[in-house]
Amino acid sequence: MEFDPTTHPHRRYNPLTGEHILVSPHRTKRPWLGQVEPPSSPNLPQYDPQCYLCPGNSRSGGQKNPVYESTYVFENDFAAILPPPAPAAPPAPHPLLTTEPVQGGCDVLIFHPRHDLTLARLQLPEIERVIEEWIRVYRKRGAEEHVKYVQIFENKGAMMGCSNPHPHGQVWSLSAIPTLPATELAHMRAYAQTTPATSGAPRGPRGRPCLLSEYAHYELGVPEAEGRVVLRNEHWVALVPWWATWPFETMLLPHHRHVPSLAHLTPAEKASFADALARLTKRYDNLFACSFAYSMGIHQRPTPPAAPQSEAEAQDDEENVAQLHLHFDPPLLRSATVKKFLVGFELMAEAQRDLTPEQAAARLRACSEVHYLDALGKEEGPWEM
Amino acid sequence: MEFDPTTHPHRRYNPLTGEHILVSPHRTKRPWLGQVEPPSSPNLPQYDPQCYLCPGNSRSGGQKNPVYESTYVFENDFAAILPPPAPAAPPAPHPLLTTEPVQGGCDVLIFHPRHDLTLARLQLPEIERVIEEWIRVYRKRGAEEHVKYVQIFENKGAMMGCSNPHPHGQVWSLSAIPTLPATELAHMRAYAQTTPATSGAPRGPRGRPCLLSEYAHYELGVPEAEGRVVLRNEHWVALVPWWATWPFETMLLPHHRHVPSLAHLTPAEKASFADALARLTKRYDNLFACSFAYSMGIHQRPTPPAAPQSEAEAQDDEENVAQLHLHFDPPLLRSATVKKFLVGFELMAEAQRDLTPEQAAARLRACSEVHYLDALGKEEGPWEM
Ligand SMILES: [Zn+2]
Ligand SMILES: [Zn+2]
Repeated sequence: MEFDPTTHPHRRYNPLTGEHILVSPHRTKRPWLGQVEPPSSPNLPQYDPQCYLCPGNSRSGGQKNPVYESTYVFENDFAAILPPPAPAAPPAPHPLLTTEPVQGGCDVLIFHPRHDLTLARLQLPEIERVIEEWIRVYRKRGAEEHVKYVQIFENKGAMMGCSNPHPHGQVWSLSAIPTLPATELAHMRAYAQTTPATSGAPRGPRGRPCLLSEYAHYELGVPEAEGRVVLRNEHWVALVPWWATWPFETMLLPHHRHVPSLAHLTPAEKASFADALARLTKRYDNLFACSFAYSMGIHQRPTPPAAPQSEAEAQDDEENVAQLHLHFDPPLLRSATVKKFLVGFELMAEAQRDLTPEQAAARLRACSEVHYLDALGKEEGPWEM
Repeated sequence: MEFDPTTHPHRRYNPLTGEHILVSPHRTKRPWLGQVEPPSSPNLPQYDPQCYLCPGNSRSGGQKNPVYESTYVFENDFAAILPPPAPAAPPAPHPLLTTEPVQGGCDVLIFHPRHDLTLARLQLPEIERVIEEWIRVYRKRGAEEHVKYVQIFENKGAMMGCSNPHPHGQVWSLSAIPTLPATELAHMRAYAQTTPATSGAPRGPRGRPCLLSEYAHYELGVPEAEGRVVLRNEHWVALVPWWATWPFETMLLPHHRHVPSLAHLTPAEKASFADALARLTKRYDNLFACSFAYSMGIHQRPTPPAAPQSEAEAQDDEENVAQLHLHFDPPLLRSATVKKFLVGFELMAEAQRDLTPEQAAARLRACSEVHYLDALGKEEGPWEM
C-alpha cells in the first residue's frame, strides 16, 4: 500500500510554530450536519448613517469622523491596550502566577470612505493607499519608545464577530512581542542559525537562509497542478501553506528577495503587493460568491529600524531575520454559509483539517480574478457553483 | 499609581503552554456591537426519531444503535483517524515539508439514552457510569500497540458546531501525542526537573514537585473572595485558571494527591469526580439560564500503565509526571446569545480577554448548584438576570 496524501490520515509539521496539524483527507465526503450561518447581506449602501466608520458620522465614544476621502486612522475608542504610563506589576504571589503590565495603543484604519467596498472591490491605487497607511502606522507606532511590536490585522465578516462591514483593519501596538509572532520569530532565527544554505532561494541577513524564502522558493518550483501556489506576480506569491489549519488559509509573501518589513518595500514591490492583494481577495469572494470572511494579519520585523539602513547595515542587523508575510485565516468550509469550527479535538489536542492544502489551492486557482459582482451576467468564472 | 488587575491592561503567562494572554479589564464596559447567536432550543424530546445517537435508531453509516440503557460506545462512522495498517510516508520533498502517517481510531461515547439530558441534568450514579466508560475506553485504546495518546473530549452546543444535543463525547486515539498535550507534558516535566519543592503541595513521581498540584495547592490557600476557585470537594477543585483564555474557562483537577490518569482514580475519587462534574456543569447552565456550550477535554498520562503499579513502581515511572486535569472552554461571554470570537488579534498575535479570571470565578461562585430547570418557580439562584 502506497501513501496517498489525498486518502491517508497524516500529520504535517508547521516549522513556523512547531505545532502539528492532523489531516484527514478521506473525510471530505462525510455529510454536513452542523450549523449553517446566515448569508452575508449582499446589498450594502455606499453610505450608512448608522455606521460609526462612515465619513462625517459620530462614533460611540462621542468623537466625529472627518469627511475623509481616502484612508482614515483614529485611535480605538475602546482600546484593549492603553498608552503609558502603566504602573509596575506587584511581585508574583507565586512563581506560577506572573503578571506583566502592557502599554501601547490600538488604532483603527479605515480603508475607504465607501461603506460597501472591501479590498476585493477597491481599485489598485486605493489598495496602494491602504498599504502606504499600514507603512505609516507601522513606522509611527514602531518609533514609540515603549512599543515592541506593531500588529496590523483585519477582521472581516459577521462570521468572524466583526459587526461592521465598512472596510477597515486595526493596528495594536504593544510593549511586548505577542505569543504567535514571538514563536515564529524564534523559529525563523533558529532556522537561520542552524540550517545550511543550499538552495538558490534569497538569503536573510549575513547570507543565512531564511525559512520563508526557502519555503516560497521550493513552492514556486513545484508543478502548478500538484502544488499549493494560488497566484504569483513579479515580487509576491500567495499559497496555501503545507501546514495550513483553516480550509482556505493562505500566506502572502515576497519571493524574489528577503524583505524584513513593510518599511523595506520598494515602490515596485508596493505596487505588486496591491496587485496580489486584489487578486487574492477577488478569488476568495468568487470561491463561494460572497464577501469572504477572514482574519488577516501581517507578521514582520517587530518594529522598523530607527533610520534607513545601508545594505551593509541591513546585513548586520539581527532583527532583519524576520521575513514579511501575511496570513489569511478564513472560516468558510464548503459554501457561503457553512464554516469550520475550531472546537473539540482542535481546542484540546491539535488542529485538524479534512480538505488537503493541495485541494484547497486547486479550488482557489480555479476561481476567476474578475469579481463576481462585476462579472454578473457575463458568464465568467466558477461562482455559479 | 498602583497596579490594579481589574483596571490595568496586562499579560499573564500560561506555565502549561508557555503562551501569554492579554487581559484588558477596563474594556468590560464597552458596548456590544457584535453578532448575537440564536438561543438554544429549550424543549427537547426525551427521544428523537431523527437522532442518530438515540437508542434503536440508525446512523448515517447504516449501522443501528442497540436499545442501550446506560452509556454506549461505538466507532465513529466518519473517523478522522483510521486503524492500522498505515503506509509509510514518502521522504519529505524538502526538509520544511514533513509528513507523518497517523493511525488509531475515533470513538463516540454516548452518556445516556435520554436525548434531552446533559451532564448537568444527570444523576450522580449516571455520571459515575460515564466516568467508568471514560476509564474503560482509555484503558482499551491505550493498550493498542500503535496508540500513543488517548484524547477524551466533549463538544457541546450548536455554538460549538455540535449539531446533536444528545449527550455524548468523543475519544480520539492516535499514534502521536498531539500538539497541546505534548506541550503541556513538556512543561510539567521541565517543572518537575528544575523547580525546588518548597510548598506542602502533593508531589509527583520521585518526590518532585507537580506543576498543577502546586498550582491547585496555591489557589486553595487564597481567600475565596479574591481567588479563582469555583468549587471544591474532598478530592477535586474547579477553578478559573490565572491564565484562562475563554471568559468562563475552568480547569477541574484533583487537589489532594498527584493523580497521573483516570486509571489511577480510587472509588472515592471517582464518586467525588462525579460530584464535581455535576456541580460545575449546573453552575454553567445557571450562569445564563441555558444549556451551556463548551468544549471539554481530559488531559492525563498519554496511555495507562500496562499493568497496575505498586507505589514504588509508580514513583519510578517518569510517565507519571502527568497530572490528570479537565479543561472546559465555553464560548459564551455575556448572555446566552453573545459569544466570544477568537479572531483578529487573537488568531494573529495572542489570546485576549476583558473580564478577569477573578471576576469570572466570582460570577460562577454566585451561581446556584440547583439546575435552573429543576428550580423553576422556586425562587432560587441568579438565573433570572
Ligand atoms: Zn506569521
Ligand atoms: Zn491540559
